[in-house]
Amino acid sequence: MKSTLLVLLSIVLLNHDSYSQSAIEDSITIRAIYDEILTEGECYENLRVLCKDIGNRLSGSENAEKAVLWGEDLLNSYGFDNVRLQEVMVPKWERGYDEIGQILHKDQVIPVGICALGGSIGCERPVIAEVIEVKYLSELEALGEENIKGKIVFFNRALDPLLINTGAAYGGAYDQRSSGASTSAKHGAVACLVRSLTLSDDDSPHTGAMSYDDNYPEVPAAAISTSGAKLLSELLKENKDLKFEIQLNCKAYPDVPSSNVIGEILGSENPEKIIVVGGHLDSWDVGEGAHDDGAGIVQSIEALRCLNALGIKPKNTIRVVLFMNEENGNNGGKTYAQEVKKSREYHVAAIESDAGGFTPRGFNVDGNEMQAEKFKSWAPLFEPYELHRFKRGFTGVDISPLRNDTIALFGLSPDSQRYFDFHHSDRDTFENVHKRELELGAAALCSLLYLIDKHGLE
Amino acid sequence: MKSTLLVLLSIVLLNHDSYSQSAIEDSITIRAIYDEILTEGECYENLRVLCKDIGNRLSGSENAEKAVLWGEDLLNSYGFDNVRLQEVMVPKWERGYDEIGQILHKDQVIPVGICALGGSIGCERPVIAEVIEVKYLSELEALGEENIKGKIVFFNRALDPLLINTGAAYGGAYDQRSSGASTSAKHGAVACLVRSLTLSDDDSPHTGAMSYDDNYPEVPAAAISTSGAKLLSELLKENKDLKFEIQLNCKAYPDVPSSNVIGEILGSENPEKIIVVGGHLDSWDVGEGAHDDGAGIVQSIEALRCLNALGIKPKNTIRVVLFMNEENGNNGGKTYAQEVKKSREYHVAAIESDAGGFTPRGFNVDGNEMQAEKFKSWAPLFEPYELHRFKRGFTGVDISPLRNDTIALFGLSPDSQRYFDFHHSDRDTFENVHKRELELGAAALCSLLYLIDKHGLE
Repeated sequence: MKSTLLVLLSIVLLNHDSYSQSAIEDSITIRAIYDEILTEGECYENLRVLCKDIGNRLSGSENAEKAVLWGEDLLNSYGFDNVRLQEVMVPKWERGYDEIGQILHKDQVIPVGICALGGSIGCERPVIAEVIEVKYLSELEALGEENIKGKIVFFNRALDPLLINTGAAYGGAYDQRSSGASTSAKHGAVACLVRSLTLSDDDSPHTGAMSYDDNYPEVPAAAISTSGAKLLSELLKENKDLKFEIQLNCKAYPDVPSSNVIGEILGSENPEKIIVVGGHLDSWDVGEGAHDDGAGIVQSIEALRCLNALGIKPKNTIRVVLFMNEENGNNGGKTYAQEVKKSREYHVAAIESDAGGFTPRGFNVDGNEMQAEKFKSWAPLFEPYELHRFKRGFTGVDISPLRNDTIALFGLSPDSQRYFDFHHSDRDTFENVHKRELELGAAALCSLLYLIDKHGLE
Repeated sequence: MKSTLLVLLSIVLLNHDSYSQSAIEDSITIRAIYDEILTEGECYENLRVLCKDIGNRLSGSENAEKAVLWGEDLLNSYGFDNVRLQEVMVPKWERGYDEIGQILHKDQVIPVGICALGGSIGCERPVIAEVIEVKYLSELEALGEENIKGKIVFFNRALDPLLINTGAAYGGAYDQRSSGASTSAKHGAVACLVRSLTLSDDDSPHTGAMSYDDNYPEVPAAAISTSGAKLLSELLKENKDLKFEIQLNCKAYPDVPSSNVIGEILGSENPEKIIVVGGHLDSWDVGEGAHDDGAGIVQSIEALRCLNALGIKPKNTIRVVLFMNEENGNNGGKTYAQEVKKSREYHVAAIESDAGGFTPRGFNVDGNEMQAEKFKSWAPLFEPYELHRFKRGFTGVDISPLRNDTIALFGLSPDSQRYFDFHHSDRDTFENVHKRELELGAAALCSLLYLIDKHGLE
């Protein structure tokens, strides 16, 4: 706060400077945004409804379509302009019931938490096979078919606890989940088990997207909980001939139509210039999709609600997009970007919130040098609200297809320590989202929208 | 991280500069500290034992004495030097069983969560009286005895949600709890109810210290849960003649002896110069004292364990102090400071962790300009670990009596959003502390100890 006070003090002393006058206005407006959201905020209640009255909402599911209607109704209820659905074709994949994972060790049958990875084929009959444990995809080549054929490959590389940002740790372990199945099948494996991508030591399997390489047979792929992975690894040391049983009942269907949900506040001066804020409406089919990404959805809506509530009339069009299908295809993001290109809409910037509803720590930026510098010059305005990170980095999956030579992309960067405890698991529920932390994120989004609209990025 | 890399790069290019060489060493050592604590850390398991095998531990209680022995054993188990107990006289106050708070509204009896404030007298028989609701102590003077006599004063001022740091919000509502009883009794009230000092909307009453002014009668004082306060306030609007029943069975006893627990790593060059790190071993008598302040205790011990584990030989003596009685008297902090003065020990600095085991955001400093500037110059070393706040501010109750012209005081400053959800209530349990967040705090403490020891503060 001190540096902001110093900034303001110097501004007062030199008030013939019009930029300085503007900085005072910015400071006052941002305070009003935080005040509105922290006292009259509706995002937490909106999240409760999305999580509890609808629940999880995988693309192509009945719940996803309920969420689309919920989103459309909510945007209309706030009186946003041009509320509409944008058709998106999405994959339809269903988990089915009674997934079974058990260790068959001597005369014991030990159940452990597993769940199909999204996109996996099911098992016609239970797969029962010996297990070969590895940490890296590259190990399979060296082991060769003679050590892998007929077995279940068990990828057991933990997230690196030394990486302070857990998103980086997730990125470093991601290949096991995305490519483990086909790499295993290439060498003759009959199935693949992947240690859950979480730093938490718990019994919940964490699902997530995987895909098959057309060159190899498709084999079932499941996540195993970290506690299950630990047990399996220990028992394998003692008995490398133990077997593991996997039963998955998931199934893929032909693609089905779904929708992005869009609404906006039309710009008073340059309605043709668009600033987007959004997150993704779909979630995995476990838990309630609360942090991932119900939080980003309700924060983005709240940002527009707040602008209206404060009577702020943006110069440019501020558009909220509830993207469909981030989790298993990103067809919402891709479709949106294609339509933008086709209609030659001009996008000034896009902001995404998809890293959990935790205390915001700053924003990442992806844009040219001038845009990044302009953005960083606003950092002192956020210091009283305890946002300190204003740097280049990954901004979000949904908005990534919008990338071109002119747009600037931004990603809200909340505290990352707890995110992967919940991510893609039955623990991602409303109860694990903190009201104030969620609201602080919404206020940060709204403040950045306000600054980009007012000052531009040039 | 970028700025640190730039710092390091410039150092490499100009490596004839001995300060720069030192900065490289610092950067490497701090990375080693984080690595050690994030992979071999013992603080989370130590917290589990303190919370689950002992539990809450109010000064003067049997549990507090168990905690003293636990602390002494633990410091000995790590091979610290000069492990010892320092006698501290402490108040002994017991809550007793079956606290009752209920709203008597028309023919309804509505129980709400209350608990005695620490230090309150009990009720010889249940207090049943009308209620007068106020927000500020100053309102009582204006209302006068005619509106207060024979009634229960209900202080219902919420923590200000607009203050981003919740510690500031707590400070702004604190006077209701500390002085509400005597201010009420001055005007003839028979008891006092205080809205729990939390931003959370829940059913748990949050206790905490209060004291009586000798000039006025002592009346019972209790915290009421925020949900209870909301209900009571609503019903009072409808029926100002409703009554409230309070039954408290607490009792004060004469002071008893207890102990601070002390251990150290003797300095290799200047053993007579001391750097203290600590928190408080006592807690309120509800919950498990996990965030307040089990976290600070185990982090402080972990900081010394880590120095030993890495073979770092401090030049000065690094001392850990587990202070007794922060919650209701601060006799541990006062006794420690008196003994320091008496023995003319020289203290370079003292660091406290007593704001919860959440993601660390930085440190507060309380010292002279030179000390504060030296401290701030280390900020880039902490940036890769996502600590950004390095400024003047409150550092800690336990170390505050050490304040003099030469010492520098520091307080670990974790993210504050969740702290008062748990503080002084039955929700302050081990399960609500996050392993990595706790460890990141311990690593920050250890890193600051290392820097102060190596570079001093002059």
